[in-house]
Amino acid sequence: MSARPEIRIGMVGYGFIGKVHTLAYQLLPMIYDPAPADIRLVGVSAASEASARKGVEQGGYGFGTTDWRELVERDDIDVINCCTPNFLHKEMLIAAMRAGKHVYCDKPLAMNLAEARDIVAIADETGIRHQMTFEYRFIPAMMRARQLVEEGFLGQVFSFRAAYLHAGYIDPNRPISWRLDVTKGGGGALFDLGAHVLDLVRFLLGEYDSVHALTETFIKERPLPGNPNQRMPVEVDDLVLMTVRMANGAVGTVEASRLATGTNDELRLEIHGQQGALRFNLMDPNWLYVYDAREPGDPIGGNRGFKAIETVQRYPPPAALPGPKFAVGWMRYHIASQYDFITSLVEGRPTSPDFIDGTRIQEVMEAGYTSAREKRWVSLPLE
Amino acid sequence: MSARPEIRIGMVGYGFIGKVHTLAYQLLPMIYDPAPADIRLVGVSAASEASARKGVEQGGYGFGTTDWRELVERDDIDVINCCTPNFLHKEMLIAAMRAGKHVYCDKPLAMNLAEARDIVAIADETGIRHQMTFEYRFIPAMMRARQLVEEGFLGQVFSFRAAYLHAGYIDPNRPISWRLDVTKGGGGALFDLGAHVLDLVRFLLGEYDSVHALTETFIKERPLPGNPNQRMPVEVDDLVLMTVRMANGAVGTVEASRLATGTNDELRLEIHGQQGALRFNLMDPNWLYVYDAREPGDPIGGNRGFKAIETVQRYPPPAALPGPKFAVGWMRYHIASQYDFITSLVEGRPTSPDFIDGTRIQEVMEAGYTSAREKRWVSLPLE
Amino acid sequence: MSARPEIRIGMVGYGFIGKVHTLAYQLLPMIYDPAPADIRLVGVSAASEASARKGVEQGGYGFGTTDWRELVERDDIDVINCCTPNFLHKEMLIAAMRAGKHVYCDKPLAMNLAEARDIVAIADETGIRHQMTFEYRFIPAMMRARQLVEEGFLGQVFSFRAAYLHAGYIDPNRPISWRLDVTKGGGGALFDLGAHVLDLVRFLLGEYDSVHALTETFIKERPLPGNPNQRMPVEVDDLVLMTVRMANGAVGTVEASRLATGTNDELRLEIHGQQGALRFNLMDPNWLYVYDAREPGDPIGGNRGFKAIETVQRYPPPAALPGPKFAVGWMRYHIASQYDFITSLVEGRPTSPDFIDGTRIQEVMEAGYTSAREKRWVSLPLE
Amino acid sequence: MSARPEIRIGMVGYGFIGKVHTLAYQLLPMIYDPAPADIRLVGVSAASEASARKGVEQGGYGFGTTDWRELVERDDIDVINCCTPNFLHKEMLIAAMRAGKHVYCDKPLAMNLAEARDIVAIADETGIRHQMTFEYRFIPAMMRARQLVEEGFLGQVFSFRAAYLHAGYIDPNRPISWRLDVTKGGGGALFDLGAHVLDLVRFLLGEYDSVHALTETFIKERPLPGNPNQRMPVEVDDLVLMTVRMANGAVGTVEASRLATGTNDELRLEIHGQQGALRFNLMDPNWLYVYDAREPGDPIGGNRGFKAIETVQRYPPPAALPGPKFAVGWMRYHIASQYDFITSLVEGRPTSPDFIDGTRIQEVMEAGYTSAREKRWVSLPLE
Repeated sequence: MSARPEIRIGMVGYGFIGKVHTLAYQLLPMIYDPAPADIRLVGVSAASEASARKGVEQGGYGFGTTDWRELVERDDIDVINCCTPNFLHKEMLIAAMRAGKHVYCDKPLAMNLAEARDIVAIADETGIRHQMTFEYRFIPAMMRARQLVEEGFLGQVFSFRAAYLHAGYIDPNRPISWRLDVTKGGGGALFDLGAHVLDLVRFLLGEYDSVHALTETFIKERPLPGNPNQRMPVEVDDLVLMTVRMANGAVGTVEASRLATGTNDELRLEIHGQQGALRFNLMDPNWLYVYDAREPGDPIGGNRGFKAIETVQRYPPPAALPGPKFAVGWMRYHIASQYDFITSLVEGRPTSPDFIDGTRIQEVMEAGYTSAREKRWVSLPLE
Repeated sequence: MSARPEIRIGMVGYGFIGKVHTLAYQLLPMIYDPAPADIRLVGVSAASEASARKGVEQGGYGFGTTDWRELVERDDIDVINCCTPNFLHKEMLIAAMRAGKHVYCDKPLAMNLAEARDIVAIADETGIRHQMTFEYRFIPAMMRARQLVEEGFLGQVFSFRAAYLHAGYIDPNRPISWRLDVTKGGGGALFDLGAHVLDLVRFLLGEYDSVHALTETFIKERPLPGNPNQRMPVEVDDLVLMTVRMANGAVGTVEASRLATGTNDELRLEIHGQQGALRFNLMDPNWLYVYDAREPGDPIGGNRGFKAIETVQRYPPPAALPGPKFAVGWMRYHIASQYDFITSLVEGRPTSPDFIDGTRIQEVMEAGYTSAREKRWVSLPLE
Repeated sequence: MSARPEIRIGMVGYGFIGKVHTLAYQLLPMIYDPAPADIRLVGVSAASEASARKGVEQGGYGFGTTDWRELVERDDIDVINCCTPNFLHKEMLIAAMRAGKHVYCDKPLAMNLAEARDIVAIADETGIRHQMTFEYRFIPAMMRARQLVEEGFLGQVFSFRAAYLHAGYIDPNRPISWRLDVTKGGGGALFDLGAHVLDLVRFLLGEYDSVHALTETFIKERPLPGNPNQRMPVEVDDLVLMTVRMANGAVGTVEASRLATGTNDELRLEIHGQQGALRFNLMDPNWLYVYDAREPGDPIGGNRGFKAIETVQRYPPPAALPGPKFAVGWMRYHIASQYDFITSLVEGRPTSPDFIDGTRIQEVMEAGYTSAREKRWVSLPLE
Repeated sequence: MSARPEIRIGMVGYGFIGKVHTLAYQLLPMIYDPAPADIRLVGVSAASEASARKGVEQGGYGFGTTDWRELVERDDIDVINCCTPNFLHKEMLIAAMRAGKHVYCDKPLAMNLAEARDIVAIADETGIRHQMTFEYRFIPAMMRARQLVEEGFLGQVFSFRAAYLHAGYIDPNRPISWRLDVTKGGGGALFDLGAHVLDLVRFLLGEYDSVHALTETFIKERPLPGNPNQRMPVEVDDLVLMTVRMANGAVGTVEASRLATGTNDELRLEIHGQQGALRFNLMDPNWLYVYDAREPGDPIGGNRGFKAIETVQRYPPPAALPGPKFAVGWMRYHIASQYDFITSLVEGRPTSPDFIDGTRIQEVMEAGYTSAREKRWVSLPLE
C-alpha cells in the first residue's frame, strides 16, 4: 500500500541504550507523519541468549543471536545500530562498514583516538553513511541555539560554562560495571557524560584549541557485581574539571561528574558573548534562555533580560505527536536523532553528526586525560 | 512463548487523542518490563475512511472501519477505547458495555450529567470495567501528592488554587472545530481543560460542596474550517473562573482558560494546609514542591522551605525505560494510565479513576455552568 | 550651605510601619543624589510614652508625644505621616488637613467607604496634597508594567489572576491584635493585603466593574495578648477569594490570605492579553516577566517566550545607591514612594496615588464584603 | 539618656563603597533594636574637596578633609573605615593601626601578598581589631550554609563550582578607571569579584591546597575618562577561570568575570558532598537550596530533592526592620557585616573575618595570577 522506502535494522546490543534505540525506531511512524521510511527490525544480537530473546519478544526484532556477525553478514539489513560497551565498537563497526552497512553508533565512538581514527578511515574507504548518537543536538532548544549562533546573535563569544552532572555513583556500594572498568569503558565520567557536553560545546562554538583538565576518583574501589565482599579498584574518573580555549578565542569550563549530589540528569550550558547570552538545562528542557545585550536596559523603559524561548516540542518538521505545546521528555531526543538519521539515508543527504564529529570529541577527551595525567595544557589537534 | 494474558483492543476514534492512546499501547512492552499483558490492536474505527486506513498503516491496527459497531460486535475484542468527540460517547459506550467490553474513555465522560448518569447505570448493570482518562493522576508528582495528603501531611486544608491554562485559541481566525461547537463538545474550556483540573482537586481533596463560576467567551465568532469568510458564533466558554468550597471545608479557585497568553500546557495546583503546602506545575513536571510548616524557621538554624521532590520518572512499578532520573514528558502519563488500566484488568482489581469519578466531575461542571448562567452559588450534589 | 527646600515631618504612629516610613525618610539623602529636599523629622506621636521616646532616640525625631494633636497644631510641620491603626485615620487626617498639612497615609485609607469619602471631601476642600502608601506601585517592575500597558503591549486584556499571600497567622495561638479586631482594623486579609493587590490591578487595568467574593475565617478565636488562656472570637477574614470583572471587559481573580502556608510575602500578578502577557512575584522582585504573543513561535526559528526583564534597582531617576544591578529588597519600595511624594511636594505637581485612589480601593473592598455576606455579585461604583 | 557605648567613625574614601558603608552606619539604630552602640560619624576624607563636602552634607560626617592623616591623628575617632582604591590601603591602614584605631577595610586587603603580610604584621603588633568587608558571609543563606557544613550535613565534600559574574564591562567604550589600572587596582576581575567568591568558598570549605588559573583580557584597550579618542591598554583580567583543590580533598572551579553577558550581580555557589548538596545565587538571595541525599528517593514515597530554605531576612539577632519575611536586598549584607563588627568591638570579642582571612584570600589570588602567567598548578601556602 505504502510507497515508502524500507529501512532494515540490525541492532547490536540490547542493554539500556539498545532498548532506547529500539523504542525510538518503534515510535517513528507515530511521531512523524509521514514517517520517513518503513522501519523493519530485522534482528538483534546481545551478550546473552536471554537478552537476545528479550529483544525479539519485547523489542519486536525478527530474530535474536549472541553473535553480531550474523547481523553484519545478512543481505536484508541496511543499518547496523551499535549499542554495545565501548570496547566492542571498533571491530564490529569496521566489519559492518566493510559489509556495506550504514552505521548508527552510541557515543563515545571508540576506546581512544587511535581506534576512532581507524574507524573513520574505513568509513571513508567504504563510503557508507555513519552517524553518532549525540542526541542532545536534537533538542529543539539546542537546534535553536545553533541557529542563533550561526545568525551571529552572540557576537564575539567571551566565555562559557558547560557541565553534565549525574549523581548515580555516590553510593560506594554500587558495584563495578563495564562503565567503571577502564578496560571495557576506556574512560569514566569524561567518556560517559563528558562526550555529550563536549559535543554540544563544539556544535555551538566550533573547534577546541587547547584543554586543561583535572580528573578525580573519589570512590577508589567498589564491590564486584553479585559479590559485595570482594572489591575491585576503580581506575576511571568520577569527575573531570576542564578549562578549555576554543579556536574562536572563547574560554570556558567543561565539567562532567557522576558524583554531583542533588542532580538527576543535568546537562547545563551557558554562553556569554559581546552581544548576547544563552542558557540551557536538560532538566528544564522546554526552554532555551536567550539574552539580547543590544536591547536597552534603561531605568524603567528598557526590556533587557533573559527570555525563556518556549522550544518545548517544536521539532522540525512539526511532529504529529504529541504536538508542539507539550512538555518534552528525555526519550524524545533519541527519536528526533533517529528520524534525522533515517531521513538522511532516504534522501541521500549527509548524516550529521557523523564519525568525524565523534573522532573530534574522542580527541578532546584524550587530550583531557593527558592533561590531567601530566598536569599541563594540551593543544589540539593531537598529532 | 509468553504465558502473558492477551488484551485485545478496539479503538474508536483516530484523531489526536486516538493516536496518543495508540502510541501508549505500543509503548507498554518497552516501558514496563514485564509488560502486564500482550496488547493486540485488533481494529480501529474513525470518522473517515482515510483516518481508519491511517490507523491501520500507522497505528498497527488489524483492520479499520468507519462504523464503530463493527468493533463492538466482535468477539475478539476485550477493550473498547473511546476517543471520539464528546457527543458520540454515550451511545457508543453503552453499546460497548452491553456487548461485554471493558471501556477506557477520554474525558469528559459525556455531554452532560444526565448522559453521564445513564452511562454509569449501564456500567453498573453490566459489571464490566471502566476507566476514565484522567491521566494527570498518573504523574509521579501527583501520586506522591495523593500519598502525602492521605498521610495527613497538610493538616487541615485551608485553601487552594488550581488552573489549567492554554493559549491555543487566542488567534480569532482559528477555525471552529467540534471543541468550539456546543452541540458536539457540550462545553468549552471548562469541559476541555476544567475536567482535568477539577479531577485533580477532587483526587487530592475529596468531594465538592458548592461552586460559583463566571464563564466568558471573548472571541464571539470564528471562521468555518476551510472557509475563512464565513464565521459562526462561538457558544462555548473561552475561560471559566470558579470559586469552590469543598466538603472538607477548604475553599479555593479553579480556573480553565484557552486564552491564557504565554502558557503552553500549564496545569497548576497549590494547596495550603495548617501543617504544610503543596505546589505543582505541568510545565515543570519533574518535581512536586512540598512545604512542611512544622519545621523550624528560626533566624539561622531553621530549615523551613519548599522542597522540590524529584519525582521525575519515579513510577511504580519502576519502569524499564527510560529510567527514574530522566526528565518526564507529556506522553508518559498516558502510558502510565493505560498501564494501570491494563494491569487492573489482568489482576481483576477495580479500575480507577472510573466512570463514577467521571460522573462526579461532570456534575461539578454542570453546576459551574448553572452558576455562571444564574449568577449564584450552586450546591452539590445536584438533584 | 544647601539651597534645597526643607520638608518638615510629623509622624503619627511609631509601630512597625511608622518605623519603616521613618527609615525611608532617613535614607532619602543617601539613596537619591541630589535629594529632593532636606527632610527634618520634627516630631513623633505614639500610643505610649515609651514608643514616643523610642521615636526620638532611635528615629531621630525632635520630640515625642502621645497626643497627635500636638503635631497637627504646630507651625513647623509640613507633612503629617499617618501610620496608626485604621480606626484612628479619619479623625487625625481630617484634623491635619484642616490645619493645612500635607498628608501621607498608610493603606487602607479608612475603616469603610463612608469614612474614606469624608476624608476625600476635606482633602478637596483644603487643597492640601495627599498620598496613599501603595508602595508596590514603585517597584521598578510595576512601573515598567504600567508603561507597557499604556503602550498597548497587551492588546485586549482577557484575564488575570492576582494574589497577596502571607502565612503569618497560621498559628492559632498567635494573639489578637488590632489587625484581628474588626472594631480597630475594619477588615481582615482583604484590608491588610487585599488593598495592595486590588490597587495594583487597578493601577494596571483601570476601574472595577463588579465583584464577587467569598471570605472565610478558619481560626475562629485567638488568645488575648499576654493572656493565652482567654480567647476572643475573630470576626475578620483570614482570606478572601474574589472574582472580578473590570470596566475594560477583562475578568480575573483577586485573592488575599494570611493563611497561605509556605509563603512569606508573596504578591503575585499575571495578566493575559490578546497580544501579550505579564507576570510578577514580590518574592522574585528583580524581574518583570513579559511575553510578546506577536513574536513567531515556529518550530525552531521562533523566539516566543517569557522574558525576565531585569528591572532590579532600575529606578527613575537613577538612584545613587546601591546602583541598578543589585538585588532589590522590600524596604526599597517605601523609599521610592516617599521620594515621589516629597518630590511632588517640592515641584508642586500632583501626588499619586492619592486619597481618591485610596477611596476607590476602599469601595472595592466594601463591595467585596457585601458580596461575601449576601452571596451575590456587587456592581461598582457603589451608591 | 542612653547608656550605650559610643563608637566614633572616621571614613577614608567617599566613593560608591564609602557611601554604602556610611549608609550602613546610619541604618544600624533602626535595623537593630537595641543598636549595639551609638555610632558617631566624626569625619570623612576623600580624594577631592567636593567629595569630602558631599560626605559632610549627605553622609552626615562632622567634618571633611582631603587628607586621611587628619582622621588617623584625632583622639575622638575609634574606627578607621577604609574605602579607598586598593593602592592606598597599605599606608593608610598601617598608620591607622599604629595610631591605635580599629580598622574596617573593604576587600581586597592589599595590592599583593607582600603588602597584605605587612599589614597583618602591624595588626598583630598593635593589637587593634580589624575586619574585612567580606559582607556576603553575612547573608542569612550563607550563615545557614556554614552551620550546615559545620554540622557535617554534606559528608565528604566531592566538588563545587563557584562564580561571581558581572556584565558591566562589556561595552568596549567604558572608560578606564582605577579598577582597570593595574597600578591602582593591583588586579582585575580576580581582585574585584574573585576575592568575594574565593572567600565564600574558604568560609564554607576551609583552606586551599592548590590552584590552576586561566586569565583573559578580551577588551585590550579602553578610552581614558573624558577623552574617548585616547585609548589606554588594559592590563588587568576581564575574567579568570580557576580549578582548585582544597585541603579537605574537594575539587572545584572558581570563576570571576566582568564580561558575563546577561548577569547583573550573580554570585553562585554549588557544593556536592557524599551526604548532601548546597546551592546559592546572589540574585535569588532569599533562599538557600539544600539537598539531603540521605532521604529516600524511591519511586513514589520518597521525599528527596532540593529544598529552598527561606532564609530571607532571618538575621541573628532578629532585626527590628524590615522583619524576617520580606525579600532581602543587596544593602542588607553590609549592614549585617557592620553590625557584627561594631558588636564585636563593644563586646570585646574577636572580629571575623579579619585581616588574616583577607591575607589568605590575597595569597590565593596571587597564586592564581602566577598560575595563569606560568601555565601551571601552584601550591599553597606560598613561600
